[in-house]
Amino acid sequence: MKLTILGCYAATPRTITNPTSQVLEIKNRLFLIDCGEGTQVQLRKNKIKFSKINHIFISHLHGDHFFGLIGTISTFALLGRTTDLHIYGPKGVKEIITLQLKLSNSWTTYELFFHELESKESEVIFEDNRVIVKTIPLKHRVYTNGFLFQEKPGERKLNVEAVQQYDIHTAYYQKIKGGGDVTLDDGTVIENEKLSFDPIPALSYAFCSDTVYNEAIIPIIKDVDVLYHESTFLESEAALALKTLHSTAQEAATIALKANAKQLVLGHYSTRYDGIERFKVEAQEIFPNVLLGDDGVSFEW
Amino acid sequence: MKLTILGCYAATPRTITNPTSQVLEIKNRLFLIDCGEGTQVQLRKNKIKFSKINHIFISHLHGDHFFGLIGTISTFALLGRTTDLHIYGPKGVKEIITLQLKLSNSWTTYELFFHELESKESEVIFEDNRVIVKTIPLKHRVYTNGFLFQEKPGERKLNVEAVQQYDIHTAYYQKIKGGGDVTLDDGTVIENEKLSFDPIPALSYAFCSDTVYNEAIIPIIKDVDVLYHESTFLESEAALALKTLHSTAQEAATIALKANAKQLVLGHYSTRYDGIERFKVEAQEIFPNVLLGDDGVSFEW
Repeated sequence: MKLTILGCYAATPRTITNPTSQVLEIKNRLFLIDCGEGTQVQLRKNKIKFSKINHIFISHLHGDHFFGLIGTISTFALLGRTTDLHIYGPKGVKEIITLQLKLSNSWTTYELFFHELESKESEVIFEDNRVIVKTIPLKHRVYTNGFLFQEKPGERKLNVEAVQQYDIHTAYYQKIKGGGDVTLDDGTVIENEKLSFDPIPALSYAFCSDTVYNEAIIPIIKDVDVLYHESTFLESEAALALKTLHSTAQEAATIALKANAKQLVLGHYSTRYDGIERFKVEAQEIFPNVLLGDDGVSFEW
Repeated sequence: MKLTILGCYAATPRTITNPTSQVLEIKNRLFLIDCGEGTQVQLRKNKIKFSKINHIFISHLHGDHFFGLIGTISTFALLGRTTDLHIYGPKGVKEIITLQLKLSNSWTTYELFFHELESKESEVIFEDNRVIVKTIPLKHRVYTNGFLFQEKPGERKLNVEAVQQYDIHTAYYQKIKGGGDVTLDDGTVIENEKLSFDPIPALSYAFCSDTVYNEAIIPIIKDVDVLYHESTFLESEAALALKTLHSTAQEAATIALKANAKQLVLGHYSTRYDGIERFKVEAQEIFPNVLLGDDGVSFEW
């Protein structure tokens, strides 16, 4: 699982910082999460192939999370894309995009599918044979969802030495990978554990931005491997965080702790601060495993 | 008069090139012309003060000319702007912007005035005591206008030595600047030419992008000081220019020649070419005074 942060600063794009957008590579799928202005250029800078992105998830309709969407969609069309593109986001996103395409008399060369979200409960919005994606209802100034990406557990790995030792026919291999025992011709039952190894653990990633401190999300993201939680402010601006329905680094860390996350990634920093190191220091007073998200940075798990 | 080109490449923003946007400073007014994605960052890079921009002109609703508008408007609001902002552009621009502001529940801190254009004839869309702006109807795939910015002639300059010599009272100075003669107490009439110098010549600037080669614009831009005319293609792609309703560098030069422009500035280059020097070479075969527009470049007249 690989996370590439294209932008993770709040409010307005600047010469040196970009608004929210990130790419999650999980089980060989590439998901684009949020799409602030300039995302298509950040994709190019980070050498992400446009053609590998088939699903875009938009948390909410504040500009720093979606003003780059129409440009990305248009550029995909200008480049002659033919593969379907799926957009998941709040109700209204379809109207905005189609109005702009209509007024510019520029239609896409590919099918564009909108999956508009309105539910205030967590729901499954994407599922295939490898990955499942659920919404994480967040509390912000407009209707907002985070997204939980979960790998499905893979097959068990064949213990090649063991199956050869028991002289097991290849016809049984798929059954073994699926967790089944094998009965030999003489009636002996060989337990699966002797014939296979555990699968690579299924990983999960939760994207939570933007949101005020909200313990209601904890059951949804419980035991998540990696939690990206917005930390717009330092603790000195805790009152402002509450007022604007954002979080502090310590609040992000508290959610990570209570949700038993293995790793916390911070981001969505207010540009009022000179540097971001202090966000990590404050978060680590509560939760140890903190990574500082930053534009152009990638993490792998 | 100073022109700063923020972006002048066609189609999609890239890591090294920006879509159309430029700032014209004329008679101490600052006009933003077109607003492709990333314009607000280009404004910052070129140290243009956001607060000095009160008028934005949008030629047409193709993405590379206006996808940065909503972000620019939003950022002005986030920075607490209170001064009125006027947007001039094709019918539909108001619906796009207000829909996005509504869905993000983010209203501006300042008054936003839309001047929607529908006419197919040239019309005056802005006028104050120093500058007049007219549309230049262009031929493109959607409804498109260029814009002609004209300085109004200034006052004549007082010939300080002469007025002292004739011992003329300061009460007459404004009359002299306005072109009036002065009658002395003894009845002698002193002609204005003896008391003042010609005003600084009034300059004009025509922005023509995007458009196919179209001689119908020549009467509107006749004798213009500076003509920015799109040159998406080189002559080798003349057929493609016609098909996509764009122009070649030589077509831009032909318009400059026939309109008796003093200076041609090229731009809106297709990104298919390795460099832009060839655009100048081809244009100069027809019209000598050619400047290559490029991102971040300024010209003064």
